[in-house]
Amino acid sequence: MWRLRHYLEMEKLEFFRLQTREEVLALYDRFAPVGVEKLELAEACGRVLAAAIAAPEDVPGFLRAAMDGYAVRAQDTFGASVGAPQYLEIKGEVPMGVAPGQGVSGGDTLRAATGAMLPPGADAVVMVEYSAEHPDGTLEVRRAVAPGENVLQPGEDVTRGEAIFPAGRPLRPQDIGLLAALGLTQVSAYQKPRVAIISSGDEIVPLDRRPAPGQVRDSNAYLGAAQVAAWGGLPRLHGIVPDDFGALRAALAEALDTTDLILISGGSSVGVRDLTLNAIQDLPGAEILVHGVALRPGKPTILASLGKPGPRPLLGLPGHPASAAVVMEVLGRPLLTRLAGLTDPPRWGRTVTARLSRNLAGATGREDYVRVRLRREGDTLWADPVLGPSGLLSPLVKSDGLVMIPLGVEGLLKGEEVTVQVFGGS
Amino acid sequence: MWRLRHYLEMEKLEFFRLQTREEVLALYDRFAPVGVEKLELAEACGRVLAAAIAAPEDVPGFLRAAMDGYAVRAQDTFGASVGAPQYLEIKGEVPMGVAPGQGVSGGDTLRAATGAMLPPGADAVVMVEYSAEHPDGTLEVRRAVAPGENVLQPGEDVTRGEAIFPAGRPLRPQDIGLLAALGLTQVSAYQKPRVAIISSGDEIVPLDRRPAPGQVRDSNAYLGAAQVAAWGGLPRLHGIVPDDFGALRAALAEALDTTDLILISGGSSVGVRDLTLNAIQDLPGAEILVHGVALRPGKPTILASLGKPGPRPLLGLPGHPASAAVVMEVLGRPLLTRLAGLTDPPRWGRTVTARLSRNLAGATGREDYVRVRLRREGDTLWADPVLGPSGLLSPLVKSDGLVMIPLGVEGLLKGEEVTVQVFGGS
Repeated sequence: MWRLRHYLEMEKLEFFRLQTREEVLALYDRFAPVGVEKLELAEACGRVLAAAIAAPEDVPGFLRAAMDGYAVRAQDTFGASVGAPQYLEIKGEVPMGVAPGQGVSGGDTLRAATGAMLPPGADAVVMVEYSAEHPDGTLEVRRAVAPGENVLQPGEDVTRGEAIFPAGRPLRPQDIGLLAALGLTQVSAYQKPRVAIISSGDEIVPLDRRPAPGQVRDSNAYLGAAQVAAWGGLPRLHGIVPDDFGALRAALAEALDTTDLILISGGSSVGVRDLTLNAIQDLPGAEILVHGVALRPGKPTILASLGKPGPRPLLGLPGHPASAAVVMEVLGRPLLTRLAGLTDPPRWGRTVTARLSRNLAGATGREDYVRVRLRREGDTLWADPVLGPSGLLSPLVKSDGLVMIPLGVEGLLKGEEVTVQVFGGS
Repeated sequence: MWRLRHYLEMEKLEFFRLQTREEVLALYDRFAPVGVEKLELAEACGRVLAAAIAAPEDVPGFLRAAMDGYAVRAQDTFGASVGAPQYLEIKGEVPMGVAPGQGVSGGDTLRAATGAMLPPGADAVVMVEYSAEHPDGTLEVRRAVAPGENVLQPGEDVTRGEAIFPAGRPLRPQDIGLLAALGLTQVSAYQKPRVAIISSGDEIVPLDRRPAPGQVRDSNAYLGAAQVAAWGGLPRLHGIVPDDFGALRAALAEALDTTDLILISGGSSVGVRDLTLNAIQDLPGAEILVHGVALRPGKPTILASLGKPGPRPLLGLPGHPASAAVVMEVLGRPLLTRLAGLTDPPRWGRTVTARLSRNLAGATGREDYVRVRLRREGDTLWADPVLGPSGLLSPLVKSDGLVMIPLGVEGLLKGEEVTVQVFGGS
């Protein structure tokens, strides 16, 4: 049993060199994106395109009025002004939703509402505001229009054959709008990565159980599952496994069958980590890629590749809730992104620039992630560090995001501009 | 039929004064948040709390080891250093998940892994790194610890009775983690607002129909539905209604029965707006609150309050897709937020600061929303305006967000710092 092991075992583990964030991220290339599915367009917002899309037709499909007014031959209005208006004969109006039954030619016009198809012969629209109808059916045009004015040309929005979206792009609402305009009722998207979450620890009890002295509830699994769901994965809680080699190995093997990524939220103690490592290594084709990362918090993180069919990743999270949450933000999210096929991620809105409200010392030899609360004071956005042990949840709850002190930097100074990675930013 | 109406009807509509964004937002107070439901904690991330939550118990519930090491009476380590270590007798170890069966007293210690309950008598943990076990069962302590060092106190994370979340707060992953730690398996949350989306227009055809000349597909409804879903609402497409008073009135009355908010995506033409206004006003208890807003794009926006039971909002969107999308961002989203009970919205991550890459002229008498694409060049984030008529979707698709030119400001200068409201920011 791990509990009886000598703590000097730890010395052995320290032989594993801590890997940097960049080194860990570079290992993700070996994991392929998940499978592809067809989605109805109404379900596709936020999902990642699995194939590039080209426009199957022109949008608009015909010459349309962009304003309420009168469809004209632009040349008939040339020279018109308030002082010297031009006059055109109103022959009727263009009905909506059908091709006009008549055209315009020298000296006449048809009323056309926004969105109407222009009649043959017309190449512009005179806006209502710059005209007046006379009781005898004559239109007084008070301002000249150029050919193409106040109209939308066929193909002006997108042209048939035009590449509109690359594979790997997450769809936003306006993208859905464009696909709808093109009549693309289904899209080919990556499936949501299935993420198995295994909680391990003899001290962990389910949420609905009142913990006896020495026991705690399974909060990390819920935190991780919520992160996975917020970032576009499909979390599944696989329950709590005791600190026992056989039980851990069985839980891992079972999860592997139905998942794209395993998160194992274990204890932070050396013994439990050892046990987890042994159980992972006992799986066919398993390879430990990372054991210990140069992050604070988050050092006892594990990355492994699990065997058949095709390598699938396992991320072993530290037991302290704040450490687990930071490792998920810094390493888990990019891994999920990779599996989700997201090669064109949203580039903005996840960070804000703020000023640090106090000096911060970094962690020697590790990238340091400090929780901060944001506070606006006049024109300045301040980042107030929220300190507290990684074993607590409430400092994380009080924070708006993370500030990173880079590797090799001794610390950050009060008043310095910092980039805050905002929690919950999309 | 509206089509035959004289366009001079427009003059009448202009009597409605354009209302500013602030004036429109102030009207939202009259609409009450939607109902409340119980949610399982695993489903609650992103949802809005309908009632404040206080901690029902202490977290942690007992004195815990925050590090791997040895549970000690701190005073037994006082004065210890590498040069002059203290020695303690190792009596065994604390098992995980149960109360220790023995205590420590003068001169002895128990091994304790991270998360273990401290035994009676112990008030600190000596870290493995600052100690050594000798073969005879003696622990060599090389650094003194203070009482409370490397432990988590009962109630240090949250104390029983402490207010942890106000009503109106959207739950983030770490919030879910804290609720899990407290054993709160269900929360009381506001329902997702149900949003009915009605498309109107004789020229509109369903997505799966190939538009004949003069016809276009129902893209605005899909764009609006995707926005609603992305912002936490439950959109429901109610189909396409022709430009006919009876049909519009019937569609509105039917939608009203099963919805918290109606979006009607209509034509931008004056005649269609008139028809929509008349159909709304014909519903029992209906009141037109806003008809025309001081926004560009978005002027022909309608806000109405619909009767029984209790006032419910209707937002009439302009027909141009870019106008509809901007009105949804600027007016629709805050309305949805209000209905969702969100009084403590996420404050950060929705905007970035950038420099404008060219001069922009504002719209006289209207708040002007300009689509921009963001581009990083060295240390500078540039906002490049993406111009194009409101009738097109592709400029919106090429944009990352919106820059607002305030009412009364003539324009913004190249190089000026601007706040960009990022699309898709949470």
